[in-house]
Amino acid sequence: MISKANRLQEVQEYYFSIKLREVRQLKAEGKPIINIGIGSPDLDPPISVSRAMVATIEQNHIHGYQSYQGLPEFRDAITNFYLRHFEVGLNPENEILPLMGSKEGIMHISMAFLNVGDEVLITNPGYPTYTSVTNLLEATPVYYDLCEDKDWFPDLDYLSKFDLSKVKIMWINYPHMPTGKNGTKELFKDLIAFAKKHEILLVNDNPYSFILNDNPLSILSIEGAKEVALELNSLSKTFNMAGWRVGMLLGSSEHIKTVLQVKSNMDSGMFYGIQQGAIAALQTDDSWFKNLNDTYKKRRNIAWQIAETLNCTFDKEASGLFVWAKLPSDKNAEQVAEDLLYKHDIFLAPGTIFGSNGKGYIRISLCVTEEVLQEVLLRISKLN
Amino acid sequence: MISKANRLQEVQEYYFSIKLREVRQLKAEGKPIINIGIGSPDLDPPISVSRAMVATIEQNHIHGYQSYQGLPEFRDAITNFYLRHFEVGLNPENEILPLMGSKEGIMHISMAFLNVGDEVLITNPGYPTYTSVTNLLEATPVYYDLCEDKDWFPDLDYLSKFDLSKVKIMWINYPHMPTGKNGTKELFKDLIAFAKKHEILLVNDNPYSFILNDNPLSILSIEGAKEVALELNSLSKTFNMAGWRVGMLLGSSEHIKTVLQVKSNMDSGMFYGIQQGAIAALQTDDSWFKNLNDTYKKRRNIAWQIAETLNCTFDKEASGLFVWAKLPSDKNAEQVAEDLLYKHDIFLAPGTIFGSNGKGYIRISLCVTEEVLQEVLLRISKLN
Repeated sequence: MISKANRLQEVQEYYFSIKLREVRQLKAEGKPIINIGIGSPDLDPPISVSRAMVATIEQNHIHGYQSYQGLPEFRDAITNFYLRHFEVGLNPENEILPLMGSKEGIMHISMAFLNVGDEVLITNPGYPTYTSVTNLLEATPVYYDLCEDKDWFPDLDYLSKFDLSKVKIMWINYPHMPTGKNGTKELFKDLIAFAKKHEILLVNDNPYSFILNDNPLSILSIEGAKEVALELNSLSKTFNMAGWRVGMLLGSSEHIKTVLQVKSNMDSGMFYGIQQGAIAALQTDDSWFKNLNDTYKKRRNIAWQIAETLNCTFDKEASGLFVWAKLPSDKNAEQVAEDLLYKHDIFLAPGTIFGSNGKGYIRISLCVTEEVLQEVLLRISKLN
Repeated sequence: MISKANRLQEVQEYYFSIKLREVRQLKAEGKPIINIGIGSPDLDPPISVSRAMVATIEQNHIHGYQSYQGLPEFRDAITNFYLRHFEVGLNPENEILPLMGSKEGIMHISMAFLNVGDEVLITNPGYPTYTSVTNLLEATPVYYDLCEDKDWFPDLDYLSKFDLSKVKIMWINYPHMPTGKNGTKELFKDLIAFAKKHEILLVNDNPYSFILNDNPLSILSIEGAKEVALELNSLSKTFNMAGWRVGMLLGSSEHIKTVLQVKSNMDSGMFYGIQQGAIAALQTDDSWFKNLNDTYKKRRNIAWQIAETLNCTFDKEASGLFVWAKLPSDKNAEQVAEDLLYKHDIFLAPGTIFGSNGKGYIRISLCVTEEVLQEVLLRISKLN
C-alpha cells in the first residue's frame, strides 16, 4: 500500500475502540457482559425532536446543500438557548458556528490555529481526542495536572513558571470529564487572565453543563472572554442526541470566521431535518432538565453504592454522566477493570485511559438503567 | 484575536461563497436573478428515502453514537450497489468506509497520506476543494493539464518526463467536473500503471457516474486497482441527497484502515436515520436512473440552445450535471459571466474558477427546471 503520513505514527487506536472489540468478542462467547464503561446516553431525546424531523422530511426542497453556517433560525435558537441558560449574549450572524458534533470542532479549531511544533495545553486526566488531534497536526501536547488535592483545578501560578511562548491553545472542559468537577466564575476569570497574559486561545469544551448540575456555566459569561476564549457545546448529552451529530462553536466573530475558513473547505452544512430537530431540542422547556436529572440521580445513587462496595471514595458534588471513584491506595485501576471484566463480566473504564493522573480511579457510566446498575451491584457484592 | 495557522494563508474563500453573497445582494435589491451557476440538485430523492427516515425515527435506541464504519447493513447495501452497477466486488467488512459526504473524504485521505511538502497532482480544470485541502495540509498542489485537444485526458507520457518522486496523491475525477468528460477502461488502466510505476495513491472522485451517462465506471473495476487506487462516491447527485451528507470511500482494507485512523479521531458515525435513508436510496431500482436522466436530458436540450445562442461549442457526449461550453475565441469567460449577471440577471460559472484551462469556457448547471432554462434562453435571445 501507499505509505501513511507521519502524523499517524503518534496516533493510537482509541482505547474504547480496542476494548469494545474485546467486549463484543466476550459477548459472542456468551458472556453476560454489562457495559458501564461508555458515555453514550441510552435515553431518548425530547419527542419534539423526532417530530420535527418527521414534520420537515416531506417538505419540498430540503434535500439540497445547506449553508456552512446553518439555518438562520438554528443560529437564533442557539442564541436564545445561550441567553436563557448561560446569560451569554451572542450575535447569531457571526458568533455561532453549528458543527456536526463538537468532536469535529476540536479538529477544526486545531487546524485553524496550530502550526507544526506549536504546543497545546491538555488536561491530565482528560478526553483523549485533544491529544489525538494535536498529534494529527504534528503539534505538541503539553499536559497540565488536575489533581484531587487541588480540587481538579489547574495550578496557574505553577504553570506560569514555565516557558509558555510556544503554547497556542489551552483545552479546558468544565464540567470536567472524567472527574465531574464543575468550573466556577472565579476559575474562569483566572483562566482568561492567564490566556490573555500568555496569548493563548482558551477553549472550553462544555457538553456536560446540564447533567447533574444546578448551575450551568459558560466561559463566555466572563467579561472580556471572547477576546481569547471559544466554547464548544453539544446536544449529545443535554438532549440525548449523540448520534444526531449536532454541536456548536461560540466565540468572537474573528475567531469563528477563522474556523469557518477551515470548515468550509472540508465539509458542508448539516442536514435540514437534523437542524430542525436541533431547534426543537433547544426550545425544550425546563421540565426536560428536571426529568432527565431525576433519572440520572436515581442511577447515581446505585453507582455510588457500587463505588462504596468497591471501597472507593468519590465527590457527591460532581456533575456529568459518570461517577469518578478513587480506589483504595493498594488497588491498581487497570487490574480492577480487568478483574471485573474477566471474572465478573462488568466493563468499566480504568482512570488511566484519561492520563496518568487517572491512576487509582475508575469511571462508572450512568448511561444504563437502574436495573442494570442493580445487577452490577449484585455481582460485585458477591465478591466481598 | 489569536493568530491564524500558517496553513490558512494559502486558502482563499470559496469562489461561490463570495459570488453567491453578491447574488443575494442583487436579489435583495429586487433583481430577478436566475442562478444556473451551481450544481445542487433541485429534484427530490426517491420517496423511499424519506419514508425510511420516518419509519426509523421513532424506533427506540437509535439516537446514540453510531459506529465510525457505519451499520453493517449500510455497508452491505454499498457492496450490492457496487456489484450491481460497477461489477466491482468489495468486502463490506473492511473495504468500505461510509462518509458524511465525499467532500470530507478529500480531507481524510489527504491527512492520512500527505506530509508537509509532499506534492499532489490535481486536474486543471477541476474541483477547487482538492487544492484547498492540499494547501490546508501544507502540501504542494501540482496541476496537470486537461485540454479539449487531448480529449480532456491527462498526458501521462508528458507527465512522466517530470520528477514525480515527491508526488504522493493524484486526484482524478471521471466523469469529470466541469468538462463532463467520461473515463474509459483504457484510461483507468493507464492511470493505474502510472500510479504503480511512480508509487502514487490514485483517487477517483466519482459522484457523477449516473448523471447523463449510460456506462457508469469505477476505477476499482480494473484488475489490480486496489493496490494503488481509492474511489470516492456520493449519494448527492445520484439520488439528489446533497444535503443528507452521505458519501463513501472504497478501496483496499489497508488504505481504508489508514483513513479510518484519521476519521475516528475527528468525527463519529453518521445518524442512524440518514444511514437508513441511504440504504433505501442504494436499493432503488433502475427506473430511478432512467427517470432522472429523462428530466436532465430535457433540461440539457435547452441548455444546449443557450450555449448555441451564446455562439458556444460543446460536446454532446458529456456526462454530469453541467453543460461545459466553449465561447468564441474573442470572448473572455469572466467578462461574459459578469455581463450576464449585471446586465441580464443570469448567474453562471466562468470556466476560470476551475483553473487556467477553463479559460474561454462557461459552465451551465442543469439543476433548475426547464421553465427557468427557457427564461434564460429568452433573456439571452434578446441580446442578439
